[in-house]
Amino acid sequence: MKIINFDTQKRGEKPANFSPFRERIHQIVFESDTPEGKLFDVVLLVMIFGSIVLLMLETVPSLQAKWGSTFHTLDWVVTIFFTIEYLVRLYCVYKPMKYATSFYGVIDIASILPAYLDFLFPGARSLMVVRSLRLMRLFRIFKMDIFLNQGNQLMLALRQSREKIFVFMFFVLLMVCIFGSIMYVVEHHANPDFSSIPTSIYWAIVTITTVGYGDISPVTGAGKFFASLIMIMGYAVIAVPTGIVTSSMVQLQRRNSAQHCQNCNKEGHDADAAYCKYCGTSLRK
Amino acid sequence: MKIINFDTQKRGEKPANFSPFRERIHQIVFESDTPEGKLFDVVLLVMIFGSIVLLMLETVPSLQAKWGSTFHTLDWVVTIFFTIEYLVRLYCVYKPMKYATSFYGVIDIASILPAYLDFLFPGARSLMVVRSLRLMRLFRIFKMDIFLNQGNQLMLALRQSREKIFVFMFFVLLMVCIFGSIMYVVEHHANPDFSSIPTSIYWAIVTITTVGYGDISPVTGAGKFFASLIMIMGYAVIAVPTGIVTSSMVQLQRRNSAQHCQNCNKEGHDADAAYCKYCGTSLRK
Amino acid sequence: MKIINFDTQKRGEKPANFSPFRERIHQIVFESDTPEGKLFDVVLLVMIFGSIVLLMLETVPSLQAKWGSTFHTLDWVVTIFFTIEYLVRLYCVYKPMKYATSFYGVIDIASILPAYLDFLFPGARSLMVVRSLRLMRLFRIFKMDIFLNQGNQLMLALRQSREKIFVFMFFVLLMVCIFGSIMYVVEHHANPDFSSIPTSIYWAIVTITTVGYGDISPVTGAGKFFASLIMIMGYAVIAVPTGIVTSSMVQLQRRNSAQHCQNCNKEGHDADAAYCKYCGTSLRK
Amino acid sequence: MKIINFDTQKRGEKPANFSPFRERIHQIVFESDTPEGKLFDVVLLVMIFGSIVLLMLETVPSLQAKWGSTFHTLDWVVTIFFTIEYLVRLYCVYKPMKYATSFYGVIDIASILPAYLDFLFPGARSLMVVRSLRLMRLFRIFKMDIFLNQGNQLMLALRQSREKIFVFMFFVLLMVCIFGSIMYVVEHHANPDFSSIPTSIYWAIVTITTVGYGDISPVTGAGKFFASLIMIMGYAVIAVPTGIVTSSMVQLQRRNSAQHCQNCNKEGHDADAAYCKYCGTSLRK
Repeated sequence: MKIINFDTQKRGEKPANFSPFRERIHQIVFESDTPEGKLFDVVLLVMIFGSIVLLMLETVPSLQAKWGSTFHTLDWVVTIFFTIEYLVRLYCVYKPMKYATSFYGVIDIASILPAYLDFLFPGARSLMVVRSLRLMRLFRIFKMDIFLNQGNQLMLALRQSREKIFVFMFFVLLMVCIFGSIMYVVEHHANPDFSSIPTSIYWAIVTITTVGYGDISPVTGAGKFFASLIMIMGYAVIAVPTGIVTSSMVQLQRRNSAQHCQNCNKEGHDADAAYCKYCGTSLRK
Repeated sequence: MKIINFDTQKRGEKPANFSPFRERIHQIVFESDTPEGKLFDVVLLVMIFGSIVLLMLETVPSLQAKWGSTFHTLDWVVTIFFTIEYLVRLYCVYKPMKYATSFYGVIDIASILPAYLDFLFPGARSLMVVRSLRLMRLFRIFKMDIFLNQGNQLMLALRQSREKIFVFMFFVLLMVCIFGSIMYVVEHHANPDFSSIPTSIYWAIVTITTVGYGDISPVTGAGKFFASLIMIMGYAVIAVPTGIVTSSMVQLQRRNSAQHCQNCNKEGHDADAAYCKYCGTSLRK
Repeated sequence: MKIINFDTQKRGEKPANFSPFRERIHQIVFESDTPEGKLFDVVLLVMIFGSIVLLMLETVPSLQAKWGSTFHTLDWVVTIFFTIEYLVRLYCVYKPMKYATSFYGVIDIASILPAYLDFLFPGARSLMVVRSLRLMRLFRIFKMDIFLNQGNQLMLALRQSREKIFVFMFFVLLMVCIFGSIMYVVEHHANPDFSSIPTSIYWAIVTITTVGYGDISPVTGAGKFFASLIMIMGYAVIAVPTGIVTSSMVQLQRRNSAQHCQNCNKEGHDADAAYCKYCGTSLRK
Repeated sequence: MKIINFDTQKRGEKPANFSPFRERIHQIVFESDTPEGKLFDVVLLVMIFGSIVLLMLETVPSLQAKWGSTFHTLDWVVTIFFTIEYLVRLYCVYKPMKYATSFYGVIDIASILPAYLDFLFPGARSLMVVRSLRLMRLFRIFKMDIFLNQGNQLMLALRQSREKIFVFMFFVLLMVCIFGSIMYVVEHHANPDFSSIPTSIYWAIVTITTVGYGDISPVTGAGKFFASLIMIMGYAVIAVPTGIVTSSMVQLQRRNSAQHCQNCNKEGHDADAAYCKYCGTSLRK
């Protein structure tokens, strides 16, 4: 039932030539039961968080002008730290390939590679923001089991309804294509903002999701009339994904209480119930 | 119970003079069980998708300037292909009239007619975007039964609540008429944007659906005060369609839609039902 | 359980001196079972709808310039028709005062009074848009019982949750006051748009309801940061009214099925069930 | 189970030297059962409400220019009234420290302190808007128990789902960081509005919450395409908090919150429970 597995848990079989030193390193880097492991995790989280803030501040022109060289130095400190960390992780796991291709392994390499790729493709470094995904370790490190559990329930509710969401998205895409084209026909003679069908579809998406930037808006009477129809329709449409997710969650809550009482055979007990609410028989056992 | 019938399934009785060749063509064009049928369907989908992209790109001025003649040629290639396909479909069905008046038959002709009508009424060709509805064949071709089923459930939930949605829409329309008129009285002396009641109603719709373009917005203190009231009211209002659709979906989930009563043949029984709620016959067995 | 009573149904006791002619008029004007009554209702609805469209079009400057005098004439035709209709209604009911103070009586007089008040207070005539409320007769006239019933259910769900909605609105008002004041402190030195606390509260309402006109938007870094917090908070907030209304509707659906089976005493039967789904016993009787 | 405790109810033990006069004052200031107590409460509410309106109007430049000195005088009247009231409250409670550190005690001091701090830090007085929180006494004074109860239920529903909301917010924050950075990379060469990653994240928040000011909006084709993806994704995302809160409320409705188990004293039993789900003791009787 664990859907978001926040870190590789199963290490598999220990290789023959695996030294106690590597085992010790593994304990520090991957686990957080020992004081050293805990310390390492906290330092790592601080570094990740700091590096994200650093990445963002670098793009602010006024700060870049003032602290440019400091930012540059700190960037390399962080990158080298993460590179060493990645190599150490590879070194201390039983199966380096399995780690490297795991969810976390991919995020770890994706957090450092753009810094090196930047030599080849300037601008690539902004992609380092994927580092923020590393913050998901937070939940594991602080043993936030309840959050993990709730996150899993959320994911389960979304997964249960993924076909409904897919069908819904398909029809929304059809609708915005058709509405965008109609608005293009209606508006583009009078309104240079509706310059092409792709632009009109962008407008339809902005409208039907109720974002409504206003960078493009109808000016003709007919355009305003059609836009009103689309908005009113979007009203009913926005109710659909909410209905899908909510009914899925309500169902999940009921299923959590699908336990049968052994005495009276009734179900509908809460997850924390120890005794049948109908006949008082113990549910545990 | 199938509400979205994604293609004509029942062919009816075979006419006397129906040649095996036409039968073979039918197998390729309408079915997708044979390799040829599958290939035809995939080619068709690619053509449909390509023609939609083509239609959209044509309207982008910079691309039109550069590739105008290519677009023109491709347009005719697609139109002629679709015309032949339509004639072939008419040729190989048992009852051409039934196909021509079916949901898919109407979409098929509506996808090609605007291209010819364009000679008479320039601009009509943008309507060819209804072609995108042909993409709904996607579900049938790839046997995406689960999506079809989920789509049917969504439609059923919306159908079940159509009276509630209708009443809700009626009151929303009354509200936007009244709010729009009030805002016109309040604002139009100071704000040229609220130039008439229809325009003010358009503003009320933009506001109550929380789209909020900002092309029209109140400038006087009284106008801002009334607009705030409308927005806060719109807060409660937007909860209504969501509530309608969600409660309908929650109810639907309790139903075991597959079960027919053996006596009265009705369906829509709850998952825990042991007897038909319409005639009292046992459902088990 | 009828909450929206769309017209006065009970006439009370017939006065002694009530002539058959007045009775006949009542049949035509208030009821729609006779052909004459039906005709009158349809004519009335057309007049109401037409007068609303007329009121709106009059405010469009270009149309007013062209058709001004026609509009003026039609206005008086409609007003005189409605005035006569109102007098006739007063004439043919048993208790004129009761009608005059009923929901529909008030709307009927409010639909004509502004036309006469316009001599005294120019501009009052725009208030005639309350005429649109007369369209609610639509439901009664065409015997749209299912819509009435659904409307009643909607109203019931909203009434059931009115205390929750009131408390919610109270806290939303507190929140927008506090957020608006904070933004005023943060922004008004740098941003002339946040000119006063009332204006900032208007901005906070526009933001928290996700309308987002963009006529006022933060420009300082701190302002954008606080605005982001408010928006993210508004995310959770918008879920609350939806949750209130939806859970109320779900409960209502369950209560509709609160019927007990006389044999097995179980409940949870659908509104259209004739037999107990658990034991097959008839529920009617 | 009372979550919002709108005022300190339990007074604790009476000190030895507590004079009857102080007891009498307490009755007037803290309770509202006597006519004097009721009068005091109404005067206080009027003062609070008036002082909030005053604070807001003061910031409107046109009113400030005209009524500046009147506002200034009224300000001091209100501040001195509230200061005396605060001292009286301290004087007549059994444990002044307990009151001073309670929810209401903190709000009461926070409502007057900024007026004095304004000598030291000009601008601090705008913070006096926290006074509006004092309006929550409204519920207690007018014995609006039903509203209190409904407010508690709302809070309970939000508390029950706080882990889910926390996890959801965490992922929304990750998403806006990543989407903001991508849009910065895509847009900032062509669009000076996307001037830095923090600004782009602000844009992403404005977009995903469907507020959509339009102060920043994509101009390049690629930017519009990515923005469309984010909006469509935001569509599904906005369904999640609604689903969380709604399913929590639906579950809560099933609970009979008033019932305590006589054996273990726990509450939160379903309305149809006959036995305590925690210890198996009968709840009936």
